[in-house]
Amino acid sequence: MEACYKISRALQSVRKLKPLVHHITNYVTANDCANITLAIGASPVMAADICEVRDMVSHANSLVINLGTLDSRTVESMIEAGKRANELNIPVILDPVGAGATPYRTKIAREIIDTIEVAVVRGNLSEIKALYGIDIQTKGVDSSENLSGDEDVPSYLKVFAMDFANQFHTVVSITGKMDIITDGKRLYIVKNGHEMLSRITGTGCMCTSLIGSYLGAETNSIDGALAGVATMGIAGEIGYNRLDKDEGTGSLKVKILDVIYHLSVKDILKWGKIYEV
Amino acid sequence: MEACYKISRALQSVRKLKPLVHHITNYVTANDCANITLAIGASPVMAADICEVRDMVSHANSLVINLGTLDSRTVESMIEAGKRANELNIPVILDPVGAGATPYRTKIAREIIDTIEVAVVRGNLSEIKALYGIDIQTKGVDSSENLSGDEDVPSYLKVFAMDFANQFHTVVSITGKMDIITDGKRLYIVKNGHEMLSRITGTGCMCTSLIGSYLGAETNSIDGALAGVATMGIAGEIGYNRLDKDEGTGSLKVKILDVIYHLSVKDILKWGKIYEV
Amino acid sequence: MEACYKISRALQSVRKLKPLVHHITNYVTANDCANITLAIGASPVMAADICEVRDMVSHANSLVINLGTLDSRTVESMIEAGKRANELNIPVILDPVGAGATPYRTKIAREIIDTIEVAVVRGNLSEIKALYGIDIQTKGVDSSENLSGDEDVPSYLKVFAMDFANQFHTVVSITGKMDIITDGKRLYIVKNGHEMLSRITGTGCMCTSLIGSYLGAETNSIDGALAGVATMGIAGEIGYNRLDKDEGTGSLKVKILDVIYHLSVKDILKWGKIYEV
Repeated sequence: MEACYKISRALQSVRKLKPLVHHITNYVTANDCANITLAIGASPVMAADICEVRDMVSHANSLVINLGTLDSRTVESMIEAGKRANELNIPVILDPVGAGATPYRTKIAREIIDTIEVAVVRGNLSEIKALYGIDIQTKGVDSSENLSGDEDVPSYLKVFAMDFANQFHTVVSITGKMDIITDGKRLYIVKNGHEMLSRITGTGCMCTSLIGSYLGAETNSIDGALAGVATMGIAGEIGYNRLDKDEGTGSLKVKILDVIYHLSVKDILKWGKIYEV
Repeated sequence: MEACYKISRALQSVRKLKPLVHHITNYVTANDCANITLAIGASPVMAADICEVRDMVSHANSLVINLGTLDSRTVESMIEAGKRANELNIPVILDPVGAGATPYRTKIAREIIDTIEVAVVRGNLSEIKALYGIDIQTKGVDSSENLSGDEDVPSYLKVFAMDFANQFHTVVSITGKMDIITDGKRLYIVKNGHEMLSRITGTGCMCTSLIGSYLGAETNSIDGALAGVATMGIAGEIGYNRLDKDEGTGSLKVKILDVIYHLSVKDILKWGKIYEV
Repeated sequence: MEACYKISRALQSVRKLKPLVHHITNYVTANDCANITLAIGASPVMAADICEVRDMVSHANSLVINLGTLDSRTVESMIEAGKRANELNIPVILDPVGAGATPYRTKIAREIIDTIEVAVVRGNLSEIKALYGIDIQTKGVDSSENLSGDEDVPSYLKVFAMDFANQFHTVVSITGKMDIITDGKRLYIVKNGHEMLSRITGTGCMCTSLIGSYLGAETNSIDGALAGVATMGIAGEIGYNRLDKDEGTGSLKVKILDVIYHLSVKDILKWGKIYEV
């Protein structure tokens, strides 16, 4: 309940401050990321050319770096924008899409987290493990080794997440069937969402953009990461509950944007399944 | 009313001629731009490689240049395609997305308008001011300094718009809460649309693609710019009026495409709020 | 009926095996391609950088090469990924978007089909003719010379399609008002779909991604191509039949994803209009 109130305050803050969220991101889900950023009440800008990223990030309230369709030219822009953001104390959120899927992705994701101070990393378990250095095999970018167990998050995963956060001095959000958010000290579990979300591309990227929106609105890293993950899960769950029997993933994506546009404190309090452990 | 009849004729012309609209555009809203171009009855093609833009634009009926996710390689293609379009008397429509947000964007937008004969420029007020040379600070690409006043467009803005049009020998469409379209002599105000449109990414880009569709169908620059702006506004307004209470920006985008697909002369005459001043 | 049972088995195979479909594709329709791949039950990954395509395709079950927004850097990645796929017996599906529209596109499409063993090529008639070497003029990427005649596919087209398949040692799917699928020996005609599909961008690209999903799930080239084309047509037709009178192309795209998400063997048997000739 305490956590739900925090998220509600963070939501009000986004709507009041309308932060500008600079994205250096992929072309597959960029449109969805822009739309979810607008739906929550923030303002997105996508710009990736080396000639302008330092200038663009200077106006921004947060920077989202998403590795979805990584290419060599953009990596340089990511690093430059990230450094400038660090100089200006603008929070950086990293989505290491597909880390572990190829050595190149793992290397670049590591290079970014080693070079830039990252406020929040959000990924699925495979990506986070790859970034940590555990040898895994990611199958695509939309799949993940899911958190096992319907009952609870196994304690080795909690330990792993906290260790990751401590080692990289960051907040980490591991999203899947259940979500873990930790800064190495506090640890939250979010049990919202629905498995159908894994059948829509970019729900992870959209979650990262929501985290960027919260952090851009002066919410601290752990609360902003929690708010982003919970918002995505709650919207997915409300959206799912509004589906007619013939509706599937096409309609669910539309409804998620609708729900977030109208999201209220009441919704968060009613639907939020958030546990501090 | 006279203006509504003009727009209606332009619409019928698009559906009859099915113009090919060559886009050199951004990856955030390209899908929406292609779909709105198809919905109105035109045919989009997106191609940006320097190896083919001169050939591609030669078959086209209009060329849309959109700076949304500008990168250095594409700028060269924009210039080459624009020059070829000029040689062939194919109208060029410029969307200077984010001009003013970074010096790079402002510079490129200026370079294009200084090098290419542009039939129509469409942007929000901040972008148009930046292009004119007024020092402003754009906040993102989806936001804008909005036209102030619910009552009417202030006269300094009308003067500014006409001056812009005269100086750059172009038609300019400044879109926002109200829209101004002028060729430096005639000036139209469009009061359609709804503020929720500003919470969907790419409504500006889509408007520009509609202008491209009209100009590709042998409508002159001022009438085509007016038709594009009015079509977007009317579709947004009809779409908004069809929203259920739970529906938000996700559904609105879908409905805008639906409305434009079915748009009739009757809709334009019923909904159009267009004033020549 | 026999064909419908084949498609049904192929569908069940996709849902069971959840193949990973590596796409090197365009930024206009990438989101739709990813979503339709997920809707059918497969897993998409979009990756185009030369630093990782050989690694990425090694994990994949099929490779889709789509020329929609061709650029010189990506061509190299397409060739490298295609060669690696050939070494590993991973099926390659080619969508020669816009072949014939510019000499550059025709040249690259030819280079790919001459260098890589392609399991299936899917395009509209103009594109397939351009690839074959017949001089045509493509008007945009969403348009095509349509199969003429409501009654039946003219026999010269059947001969052309079979000749194409034999000459390039591939399966070819020519999609339009009716669809032809042939491996040079067997030839299928699919009469599903609706003309409104041609007013949505990327229905061709999405069809190609469905073929990629079927081929990735151990369905042979001719059956997988047939299944992909029929799935797209059936989904389009069911979706169209569910449209309210005010709904247009925006809603139809959403419904196509919904239908494919829920697609059942019963739907295929009920709606499939597939003829072996």
